[in-house]
Amino acid sequence: MEFSSKLLENAVYEMSQLPGIGKRTALRLVLHLLRQPETQTQHLVKALGTLREDVKFCKKCHSISDVEVCDICSNPNRIQDIVCVVEDIRDVMAIESTSQYRGLYHVLGGKISPMDGIGPQDLKIHTLVEKVKSGTIKELIFALSATMEGDTTNFYIYKQLEGVEVKIATIARGIGVNDELEYADEVTLGRSIINRIPFENALKSS
Amino acid sequence: MEFSSKLLENAVYEMSQLPGIGKRTALRLVLHLLRQPETQTQHLVKALGTLREDVKFCKKCHSISDVEVCDICSNPNRIQDIVCVVEDIRDVMAIESTSQYRGLYHVLGGKISPMDGIGPQDLKIHTLVEKVKSGTIKELIFALSATMEGDTTNFYIYKQLEGVEVKIATIARGIGVNDELEYADEVTLGRSIINRIPFENALKSS
Repeated sequence: MEFSSKLLENAVYEMSQLPGIGKRTALRLVLHLLRQPETQTQHLVKALGTLREDVKFCKKCHSISDVEVCDICSNPNRIQDIVCVVEDIRDVMAIESTSQYRGLYHVLGGKISPMDGIGPQDLKIHTLVEKVKSGTIKELIFALSATMEGDTTNFYIYKQLEGVEVKIATIARGIGVNDELEYADEVTLGRSIINRIPFENALKSS
Repeated sequence: MEFSSKLLENAVYEMSQLPGIGKRTALRLVLHLLRQPETQTQHLVKALGTLREDVKFCKKCHSISDVEVCDICSNPNRIQDIVCVVEDIRDVMAIESTSQYRGLYHVLGGKISPMDGIGPQDLKIHTLVEKVKSGTIKELIFALSATMEGDTTNFYIYKQLEGVEVKIATIARGIGVNDELEYADEVTLGRSIINRIPFENALKSS
């Protein structure tokens, strides 16, 4: 792509650094901003800049928060000794939207992924292990994605906690509610048969 | 979506104002920026802010340019009396990349679209009409998209120039080179038959 303006080229380049945004899309977005009132760009620029500068992470669960301890961690009505281990704040939001979970969270900030150069020391695993070893946690629930990286991370934490008295669970994998069996992938379908649950339990949770 | 942080919510909101970017994608992009070094956000914010503040449009063709008169308009080797009328700078870049056009451009900045509240006065039509009426232009080539808005805009300009001596052409519509006939839409295929060209001409341009 040849640009008639360095300013434009630069803006498109920076925009295309975002994941899933190629040069063409970046150009479309930047030209859109140019057509809108200048205030829109100012608001966008200010919101991104302020977030990046002032962002805080909850001291307890490492989720993004505007205060030192997030609303969930500081809520006395939440069950304090069950902790759900997730990758990032999107997972917290997804689980919260179900209204089915009343415990706390621990946000790792990613998964162990040697291919991307992410090791255990890049994640908030150490503080989780400390927390569990201090004896205040009764149950951990792994809710990482069921990929090789997710499984590796689960297993790494599991090994770190060997000998520590804590129940460790992982969220159930299976056919989605309302999904057709014939369209499910074999691995999911296979797991849902192996990890079948008593029908009475299913009746209770529906 | 419920956010644990106002800063995050605000950044996601502003990001989701961009076309084709929903709340989920916006959240993904913003979280990506948070994981990257702070400099990436700073560069993005600076590039967008500077572009919006300092952007200049060529005095002659209204294309985006860092100087008063863009490189194409100020190039004495370009044919000065043929003007290609396009919607925005992306079309200029697309045509330039073919290396088949040696004339000048006129960037309208959009198409007439009553549905979006865009009338002739919102576009650079007036300056185009003036330019043609001054008698320095021999040929206009309409290269707007073949939509109702594009056709309306073409027709509006055409009417404004009634009685003015200037050749008005529109770029050829037809089946793309290397495209299969069976997959072409009927309108395109129909137009390509109606506007068929002598085989000798086709031989020359291939």
